[in-house]
Amino acid sequence: MSETSILRLDHRRRRDARITTHVCLTARAFGASEVILSGDEDNKLMENVRDVIERWGGDFEVEYQKNWKKSMEEWKRNGGKIVHLTMYGEQVQEVVKDIKDSPMDKLVVVGGSRVPIQVYREADWNVSVTTQPHSEVSALALFLHMYFEGKELNKEFEGGKLKVVPSAHGKKILDQDKLNDEK
Amino acid sequence: MSETSILRLDHRRRRDARITTHVCLTARAFGASEVILSGDEDNKLMENVRDVIERWGGDFEVEYQKNWKKSMEEWKRNGGKIVHLTMYGEQVQEVVKDIKDSPMDKLVVVGGSRVPIQVYREADWNVSVTTQPHSEVSALALFLHMYFEGKELNKEFEGGKLKVVPSAHGKKILDQDKLNDEK
Repeated sequence: MSETSILRLDHRRRRDARITTHVCLTARAFGASEVILSGDEDNKLMENVRDVIERWGGDFEVEYQKNWKKSMEEWKRNGGKIVHLTMYGEQVQEVVKDIKDSPMDKLVVVGGSRVPIQVYREADWNVSVTTQPHSEVSALALFLHMYFEGKELNKEFEGGKLKVVPSAHGKKILDQDKLNDEK
Repeated sequence: MSETSILRLDHRRRRDARITTHVCLTARAFGASEVILSGDEDNKLMENVRDVIERWGGDFEVEYQKNWKKSMEEWKRNGGKIVHLTMYGEQVQEVVKDIKDSPMDKLVVVGGSRVPIQVYREADWNVSVTTQPHSEVSALALFLHMYFEGKELNKEFEGGKLKVVPSAHGKKILDQDKLNDEK
């Protein structure tokens, strides 16, 4: 299966910490394999995300790349395709089939406050979720859900310490450390 | 058609302004009819959301209700049903059909930092999107998308000044004010 990476443009440490964290966790929960952060280097954010990976499992990765142009160029040179999520793009319901039909690795670019026009030009697909203003977090979730055809909802995250047991009216968590203690 | 409202619990003005704004805009873009904000009263945030509604159209509403218990009780008294989005709930792919089969108005409750156990008890459905930690914004987007069966992607927002014309490699916006000027 091809890889799906997310490139977060123009992260600003003070202003974007929570939104970018939500972008990273959404990428992981919805089946992407890594997030590349651009903009400010933010070690605390990366530690927080790695902490979630350690506790909840899966082989998701987060890394920093100062130069987003380099990331995009490299991706293309390696034969990968680029999907840029933007409210100005073609509607996801119109183009997602084309994107799925391509067997190449995908880099999903999620914008910051101002996205250079170059990103629109370099992207193989500029994709809009609803054509309304909302959130890079919800656009990413929706795009990955349609791209993975809902299979991401059943994804297993191997090797984590914690696991939710779905419950109608409460909270149930399996904690591997506690299970080990009880043995 | 039944109404779909969103109740955002425990908004904290300083810490949550951006995330709660994204919750509101996601609710609007994905076809809900209103957001009820609880926790801190935040007039600036509400103004920002109303500004988006004015510019981009649709009949979405945002209001403040200090006492979330009252909102939930009132909703139930009026015959509406409550869906609480939580990573501990039953998996969305298992329960969304049941929720759609109910013809009653739905109140979708989106948690804050700590959700009282009462919310889990009072909800008709506690619903999890992926059972992994991620974001109330992506959980809301995904839930509404599955609840509205993707029809929300084609929703028309009447009466706005701005409208995106989906575009493969650029930005095209119809601006009603400018169109009127050009006449």
